[in-house]
This record gives sequence, C-alpha cells and structure tokens, in this order.
Amino acid sequence: MGNFKGHALPGSFFLLFGLWWSVKYPLKYLCRKNKSACYLGSRAGFQRLEFVEGIIKAAFALIGMVAEQFVPDGPHLKLYNYEEQHWDHLMNWQHATMYLFYGISGLVDIVAHGTNTLPVAVDRMVLSLAVFIEGFLFCYHLHGRAMLDVHVHQLLLFAIFGGAVCIFLEVFFRGSIVLEMLRTSLCILQGSWLWQIGFVLYPPNGSPEWNQMDHTNMMFLTMCYCWHYAFAFLILAVNYAIVRSFLLILDRLGLDEVTLPSL
Amino acid sequence: MGNFKGHALPGSFFLLFGLWWSVKYPLKYLCRKNKSACYLGSRAGFQRLEFVEGIIKAAFALIGMVAEQFVPDGPHLKLYNYEEQHWDHLMNWQHATMYLFYGISGLVDIVAHGTNTLPVAVDRMVLSLAVFIEGFLFCYHLHGRAMLDVHVHQLLLFAIFGGAVCIFLEVFFRGSIVLEMLRTSLCILQGSWLWQIGFVLYPPNGSPEWNQMDHTNMMFLTMCYCWHYAFAFLILAVNYAIVRSFLLILDRLGLDEVTLPSL
Amino acid sequence: MGNFKGHALPGSFFLLFGLWWSVKYPLKYLCRKNKSACYLGSRAGFQRLEFVEGIIKAAFALIGMVAEQFVPDGPHLKLYNYEEQHWDHLMNWQHATMYLFYGISGLVDIVAHGTNTLPVAVDRMVLSLAVFIEGFLFCYHLHGRAMLDVHVHQLLLFAIFGGAVCIFLEVFFRGSIVLEMLRTSLCILQGSWLWQIGFVLYPPNGSPEWNQMDHTNMMFLTMCYCWHYAFAFLILAVNYAIVRSFLLILDRLGLDEVTLPSL
Amino acid sequence: MGNFKGHALPGSFFLLFGLWWSVKYPLKYLCRKNKSACYLGSRAGFQRLEFVEGIIKAAFALIGMVAEQFVPDGPHLKLYNYEEQHWDHLMNWQHATMYLFYGISGLVDIVAHGTNTLPVAVDRMVLSLAVFIEGFLFCYHLHGRAMLDVHVHQLLLFAIFGGAVCIFLEVFFRGSIVLEMLRTSLCILQGSWLWQIGFVLYPPNGSPEWNQMDHTNMMFLTMCYCWHYAFAFLILAVNYAIVRSFLLILDRLGLDEVTLPSL
Repeated sequence: MGNFKGHALPGSFFLLFGLWWSVKYPLKYLCRKNKSACYLGSRAGFQRLEFVEGIIKAAFALIGMVAEQFVPDGPHLKLYNYEEQHWDHLMNWQHATMYLFYGISGLVDIVAHGTNTLPVAVDRMVLSLAVFIEGFLFCYHLHGRAMLDVHVHQLLLFAIFGGAVCIFLEVFFRGSIVLEMLRTSLCILQGSWLWQIGFVLYPPNGSPEWNQMDHTNMMFLTMCYCWHYAFAFLILAVNYAIVRSFLLILDRLGLDEVTLPSL
Repeated sequence: MGNFKGHALPGSFFLLFGLWWSVKYPLKYLCRKNKSACYLGSRAGFQRLEFVEGIIKAAFALIGMVAEQFVPDGPHLKLYNYEEQHWDHLMNWQHATMYLFYGISGLVDIVAHGTNTLPVAVDRMVLSLAVFIEGFLFCYHLHGRAMLDVHVHQLLLFAIFGGAVCIFLEVFFRGSIVLEMLRTSLCILQGSWLWQIGFVLYPPNGSPEWNQMDHTNMMFLTMCYCWHYAFAFLILAVNYAIVRSFLLILDRLGLDEVTLPSL
Repeated sequence: MGNFKGHALPGSFFLLFGLWWSVKYPLKYLCRKNKSACYLGSRAGFQRLEFVEGIIKAAFALIGMVAEQFVPDGPHLKLYNYEEQHWDHLMNWQHATMYLFYGISGLVDIVAHGTNTLPVAVDRMVLSLAVFIEGFLFCYHLHGRAMLDVHVHQLLLFAIFGGAVCIFLEVFFRGSIVLEMLRTSLCILQGSWLWQIGFVLYPPNGSPEWNQMDHTNMMFLTMCYCWHYAFAFLILAVNYAIVRSFLLILDRLGLDEVTLPSL
Repeated sequence: MGNFKGHALPGSFFLLFGLWWSVKYPLKYLCRKNKSACYLGSRAGFQRLEFVEGIIKAAFALIGMVAEQFVPDGPHLKLYNYEEQHWDHLMNWQHATMYLFYGISGLVDIVAHGTNTLPVAVDRMVLSLAVFIEGFLFCYHLHGRAMLDVHVHQLLLFAIFGGAVCIFLEVFFRGSIVLEMLRTSLCILQGSWLWQIGFVLYPPNGSPEWNQMDHTNMMFLTMCYCWHYAFAFLILAVNYAIVRSFLLILDRLGLDEVTLPSL
C-alpha cells in the first residue's frame, strides 16, 4: 500500500460509499416525511437496499483481502518467515485485517437485513467496531515515519474515530437523519483525504516531492483537511437538493408508484 | 490577527452573540412556560429570529473572510508564492477557513429556518462542527510560541471544545434550556477571554509586556479564566432576571399581544 | 492550605455532604417507591431540603472564601504586590476561586428550590461546573511538586472529574437513584482521600515523613485509593440498610404522618 | 501472577463468563421476542439466573482473594514489612483488591436479584466500577517493564475500559441486546488475550522467549489482538445460531413448558 494506488483505491471505495449514502439517506428521509411521495421510501425497499449494500461491502472486503495477500510482493498467506526469523509482510497482513472487519460488517448486514433473526441495531454496532478497528490499527501503524507522513495520517484518524463514534450513536438514535448525514460527510472526507495523502506522499507524474520536515506544509495540510470537509458538505448539499427536486417532480407527475428495479 | 485588534474584534462578535443569546433563550423558555404570556414565544416568531441570526452569522463570516484576504498585508487570494517557494500568509488563510465554517453554519440556519426543506436539528450539527473546526485549527496553530502564549490559547480551547460538545448534545436534546444557557455562558467566556488574550499578549497603550516565562503569570491567568466564567454566569443571571421582570410587567399590563417588529 | 488542617477541613466538608446524601437519596428513593410510606417522601419536603442544602453550601463557601483571604498569612484581598512586582498569595486566591463556584452553586440551589423561576435542572448543571472547575484548578496546581505529591493529587482528580461527569449526566437523567448514589460515593471518596493526603504529605504528631521518591509508596497509595472507595461503598450500603429498616418500622407503627420538623 | 498460570487462570474465568453470556443473552433476547416460545424467557427465570451468577462471581472473587494472600510466596495479610521497612508483596495485594471489587459486584447482584430492596440498575453500575477499577490498577501496574510487556497489557486496557463504558451505558439502556453482546465480546476478548499474554511473556514448555525489543513483534501483536476480537465475534455468532436453532426445535416439538431446573 506504500504507493499512490494503495491510497487512491481504498479512497475511491470510501468516496463511492459516501456518495451513495449522500443520495440514499436524503431519499429515505424525504420519502418518510412526505408519506405519499413514492414507493422508494417503503421499509421493504430500504431493507433490500441495505441487504445489497451488505453484499457489496462484503465483496469489496473479500477482494481487498485477497489482493493484499496475493499481489506479487504480498505474503501469500505466509505469516512468519522461519528461515530469516522475522514476520512476513506485516503491512499487508494489517490491511487484510482491516478489510476482514469490514467483511464481518458486510456479513452482519446481509444476515440482519436478509432475514429477521438478528436484532436490527447490530449492523451499526459491528460497522462502528469495524471503523474503530481501522483507526486502532492506523494508530500503531505510524511508528518511525517522517513528520509530514505521521501528520496526514493523524488527520485521517479524526475522520475515522469521528465516524466510529457517530455510528455508535446510531445504535441508540437509529434513523436519525442528522447522524446519518454526519457519517456520510465523514466517509466522503476519509475518501478524499486518502486521495490527498496519495498526492502528498507519492506525487504521481513525477511532481516534485513535498518537504517532509517543513512546518508550513503541515499547517497548510491541516487547513486543506478542513477544505476537504467543506467540500464534503457541498456534495451533501447538492445531492440533497437534487434528490428533493427529483421527488417533487415525481410527485407532480403523479408517479407515486415508481418501484425499485427488482434486485 | 497577531495584534490587539485581531483578538478584540472576533472577541466582540462572540460577546455580541453571547449577550443576545442570554436574552433570547430565557425569553423563549419563559414564554413557553407561561403560554399565555406573549406572542414573543410563538414558534413562528422564534423561527424568524433564527433566520435573521443565520443571515447575521453568514454576513459576519463573509466580512471576516474578505477582511482576512484583502487587508493590506493579506494574501489577496494568493495561496502559494511560486517565486520564493513557500506558502503565502497561512495565518490569514487559516482564519478565513474558520470563518468559512461559520458562514456555512449561517447558510444552513437560513435554509433550515427560512424553508421547511431541511431536518431541523441540522443547524445545531453544523454549528457544532464549525465550533469544533475552530478549536481544531487552533490546536495546530500554537507550534513554537512562547509558554504564556500557548497557555492562554489552550485555556480558550476549553471554552471552544466545551461549546462544541454542548451544541452537539443539543442535536439530541433540542430546546433544553440548560444546554442553551451552558452554550451561552461558554460563548460569552470565549468572547471575553479573546479580549483578555489581546490585553495579555499585545498590551495596548504602551503598558509593560507580561513576562512570558513567569510561572506565576500562568497560575494567575488560569484563575482569571475562572473569574471570566463567573462573570459570564453573572451576566446570564442578570439578563434572566431582567427578561423575567419584563414579561411579568407585560402580563400585568395585559399587553399579551406584543409582536416582534416585522423583519 | 499547605498543611494537615488545610486538607482535613475541606475533606470534612465533603465527607459531611457525602454522608448526608447517603441518607437523603435512599430515603427519597424508598419513599417514592412505597408511596404510602411517609410524608418524608413528598416533593415539597425534599424541595425544602434542597433549599436548606443550598443555604449550607453557600454559607460554607462564604466562610471558606473569607478564611482563605483573612487568615494571618493570607492576601487580605490584595492580588498584586506592586513593591516586589509579583502576584500575592496565589494559592489562597485559587482556593477562594474554587469556593466561589461552590458558592454560586449554593445560590442557584436557593433560587431554584426556593422559588419557581428557574428551570429545575440548572442546579445540577451549575454544581457540575463547580466540581469541574475545582478539578480544572487542581490540574494547574501541581507544577513542580514532588512525585508522590503529584500522584496523590492526580488520584483525587479521578474522584473530582468522575463526580463532575456524573452530575452532568443527572441534568438529563434527573432523579436517577443510581447516578445519585454514584455521586454520593465519589463525594465520600473525595472527602476521605483529602484526609489521606493530609496524613501522607503532612504527617501529624511527628510521624516520620513518607519517602516522596519511592515507587512502592505510589503503588501502595493507588491501591489504598481503591480501598477508600470500597469503604465509601460500605458506608452507602450500611446507610441504605438503616434507612430501609427505619422506614419499615415506621410503616409497621402506622406512623405514616411523620413530618419534617418545620425549617 | 508473574507466570503463565497467573494469566491463564483469570483468563479462564473471563472466558467462562463470556461464553456463558454468549448463550444467556441470545436466549433472553429470542425468548422475549417470541413470547410464546418458552418458559426460559420468563422474568423470574432470568432473575434467578442473575442471582446464581452473583453467587458464582462472589465465590470466584473470594477464592481469588484468599489465593493471592495465602499462596506460599504471598503476603499472608501482612501489608508492611517493619523489619526491612518496605511494603510487602504489593502485587498480590493489588490483585486481591481487583478481586475485592468483583466480590462487591457479586454481593450486589445477590442482594439486587435475590430481594427487591435495591434499585435494579445498581448491579450494572457496580459491575462497571469493578471493571473500571481493574483497568485503573492495571494502568499503574506497568511502571518500568519492557516495551512488549507494556504493549500487550495496554492492548488489554482497551478491552477493559471498553467493557467498563459498555456496562455503564447499560445502566441507562438496560436490556439492550446490542450492548449485552458488545460486553460479551469484550469479556471473551479479555479472557483470550490474558491467555495470549501468558504465552507471549512466559512461554510454556520451553518455547523460545519473544524478543521484547523487536518492533515487528509489537506490530504483530496489535494485529493478533484484532484477530482475537474477530474470534470472539465468531463464538458469539455460533452460539447465537445454536441457541436460535434450539429454540426453533423446542417450538416445533411444542415443548413450550421447559423449565429451568430448580436451583
């Protein structure tokens, strides 16, 4: 993962989920508010969506785990190098562990929304733990790196732990649109910041390297982080407005029987 | 912002908002309690007030951003000095970023209270994030300053993060007079402490400088901070009493149809 | 306050309040549970009790402030020594500031329970802030002291901040017997630990001094702190049992009309 | 406790309780959901279970305390060695103190569920405090040890303090299956991690020692900790499935009158 692609790829996944959530949650909220508006807001429809989300999450996590293990310079499931007496490719193993917990969260989503056997808030609890463990592993990941490298990852931790706390609160305040949008904004922030980390630490196209020891670079990046967050707000606002207009148009056309394509 | 005026100005804004809130929230609470008392307590009246507050907040933030950019020694929207290869006026950019989030909060207030399209608790969530980001930028602002300078700004962080947590709690306990008064007191504290910082670090009128390395100065200022907070309580208590008397007089005169001046 | 008496005196006040609460709250809870049991459990009776508590708190705080100012080696209201250019008796001023906030809390209790003008949860909020500010001032109090001295005061901070959080929670979960008993136990702990600090740092009766640099002393005192807490539980349990037996006897005698002595 | 057995023994207790809870709470939840399913879900049945749990907890704690005191190289209730002027066997006293609070928690369980005299949430509050004090004593336990030793115990603290917070939340959200399962998973994690600590620090059967100063060992153990947690999830999931199948079979057989063996 120590290259540009290794940050852009997971960043894209987070951006994808964030963008999707920035459409889904306003849709859910606005449908619930204007009950007659559309079929989209039905409980069954959204439960099916959550089910599909779980499958996608689990699939991404599985791909991630397999990729971390079987890339050419990966560990190929070998944990300890007995000849040279040291651990083998610990970084890859750590990333695979992060994906593992997102995979568990995906599985729990599938079971909780596909059947009726699990208490419903368990999906949020397990997602919260998956995000927390991502942050936890990141914390112990940064030993002995350069100042700027540590700083940009520490900034990421705010988005990660903020997200974990937000999802944990959703266990108790389930369906709160405010928490869902906070989560969405933090997810987009995490995704776009992972891209930014890629650009800063591994400048593509032969751009010059950032000076890792310059304190003004740190100050700029702290500020840049806030701009990313403002940008996440902007995306949320635009998508909220689009969804609202879309529903208003539907309402006017009397198309209140639009259904989700059967999955 | 590295001068007396640069601390007194934002301090005045916080004091202004704090003082206004110390009138508004008791008024709202007491009107709600004695339903017949006055028109002032009507939902519509207060919604209009919040709308106006949003406009003022956004206007102040816009003025702040423009001022930080276009003061004579400001960056004039130039972020990077390519000739000398360094970031340009990062301090001004940081302050503009702080104002940006207060501006976003103002915009959200305007939309949430001017129309019916947004979930209502979003205004508090965004305000909480704006305050949090103010504290977040402050944290990374203090690198390499003198001991006393760092200390007075750290004390400020208690008011800032305390306020952010308090506003976040209001998302879930909306309209709780206790939280609103706590927020008000922390806002007044922040304002008056910004003035105090100005007096300590940039003594106006040629007063002698404070010894930045004297530990007893730190101890005194810690205590002084508590006095500022006691003073904020005093203001709250006085304004609460005044509002209450005013409402009692209104009630006795039978003037229960007082209306807000049309905005 | 840098002597045995200076720790034993405030310790006694906390113990006194803790012991009183360990009777009051079980009484309130058990009366509320068995509605018919006694007049003691009436709302009016307890409101009067809280009112009296406020008066006692404010009086203690006033005495404390006056004593800190006017003891022979106190500041006598002089804050700055202009001749020698240094702050005067900052320690005494700090303690007076702590008492000031307990005094404010007492005043708020008096107004909130003596009249009907204040929202009722304000008393807990202000008490929580008073306890928090006590801890806050303690934090900046320990600069440059010996290791054992710092350690015993840090242990105290757990009781103080624990208490502040607990009282803050009571704002939202008012009347929760569990939180009230937690607060009581932390108050007793704070009181008995202040006595312990006095014995450790200023051994009375010519006992030998504790070695401030011995790490086993620190380990013992950490453990000793837990024993103090177990002891606080014991007091709570015994008082709970006594109050319960007392109410059962009252019930059997048919003395369900026992009234509080008029205050 | 500085040997393999000293970590494996308490680890087994935590594992035992965790495994038992991973059966009990799903059973309780599923019985409550399908009201007709079985007698097992009755309030009285579970109250009796909690009562028995309290007895077992208190008994284990008593055994632990006695063992720590009276093992051959234990303190035999002697706290201070007056001849050599130092504290005696502080480690054993600390462990006995930890057990003491679990003993108090057991006693409170017995009283709260055996009689009707205590407010019911007190059992969770006291258990939360017992777990918190375990963590608190651990924090001050690690002074001057080797890096790896400190690290594995710090990891343990996440499970301990996480558990304490989770149980504290149960005071307010009593009977929340999600919190109960979180607690169960953290309890299993603590138990299995204590075993792991034993294997790492005191390798049995003459395995080679771990290099205490190797940073990759730390990284591996951090990751290993997450695997233990994933394993705890697996146990929870399997037991949940088993309990559910068992109840379904009962239902089909019409054996809805299964009773707990009288205790």
